Amino acid sequence: MRVLGVDPGLTRCGVGVVEGVAGRPLTMLGVGVVRTPADAELGDRLVAVERGIEEWLDTHRPEIVAVERVFSQHNVSTVMGTAQASAVAMLCAARRGIPVALHTPSEVKAAVTGSGRADKAQVGAMVTRLLRLAEPPKPADAADALALAICHIWRAPAQNRLQQAVAQHASKGRTR
Amino acid sequence: MRVLGVDPGLTRCGVGVVEGVAGRPLTMLGVGVVRTPADAELGDRLVAVERGIEEWLDTHRPEIVAVERVFSQHNVSTVMGTAQASAVAMLCAARRGIPVALHTPSEVKAAVTGSGRADKAQVGAMVTRLLRLAEPPKPADAADALALAICHIWRAPAQNRLQQAVAQHASKGRTR
Repeated sequence: MRVLGVDPGLTRCGVGVVEGVAGRPLTMLGVGVVRTPADAELGDRLVAVERGIEEWLDTHRPEIVAVERVFSQHNVSTVMGTAQASAVAMLCAARRGIPVALHTPSEVKAAVTGSGRADKAQVGAMVTRLLRLAEPPKPADAADALALAICHIWRAPAQNRLQQAVAQHASKGRTR
Repeated sequence: MRVLGVDPGLTRCGVGVVEGVAGRPLTMLGVGVVRTPADAELGDRLVAVERGIEEWLDTHRPEIVAVERVFSQHNVSTVMGTAQASAVAMLCAARRGIPVALHTPSEVKAAVTGSGRADKAQVGAMVTRLLRLAEPPKPADAADALALAICHIWRAPAQNRLQQAVAQHASKGRTR
């Protein structure tokens, strides 16, 4: 499974591609940040985010795009930009027919560190170890994007089993 | 000046096109709602909003797109969808090089009713009168989109004068 993780943001949108399956060593295929100038018009910044995401989709052809689920309870001053950047990332994926998965920040932290309240440094350290990198990816947004992709690969089997169980239960219900 | 007003939303995204200049009777060129099914995937809903906005841009070729400015203080359960739909509308406009203007709900209400705290019925009544319609546009999202376009046409001269004054002041400063 090849996953593009997106840590959405207008100023810095983290992107990272991880390939692998749960229970096997994972491989990082790319990591980076899509940046847009804070003094540009909002519409133009969204166009720049779109262009950046499209390039990552073109280059890496992921099967899934995992995006951080944005909550409105977060920091009020940045949450709107985060929601808007995440909308552009989801739009780019859905337009190509690529499934989008959302994971909360605490799900991501719990997946890679074992604790939903881990700090940035801990997430960066675990991403470095799990992907066997020489040093933590910088900035933190890039490391968070990789953590999202890892989280998706590890959570997907459980999610799929759940969906299969629900589907089997539903089909049994129909044949009864 | 031809303005496409957009009252962003995922379930109902109001759209309305108004043509005219401040101080002259205004003309409505079109009004409607882009709807997306609440049970569809979020990415697919954003694609549907994009498709709808693109159709309105193709049909009416507005010079400006006026979008409601979304605040995170609003209703927590709907604000994320509103922010995401507004991002798609701004993206569609900016991609075509069409300027995007943002107006707050109270600016819009104050522009068309004289009060920033007017209710939906009052806004609908004034939109009906100002555009000489037979009855208030429905649903309210459609009327709000027209109110946004009217607000932009009426506020634009003042905004332009302000920008010109700032530009003149800046150029005087340079030549001194």
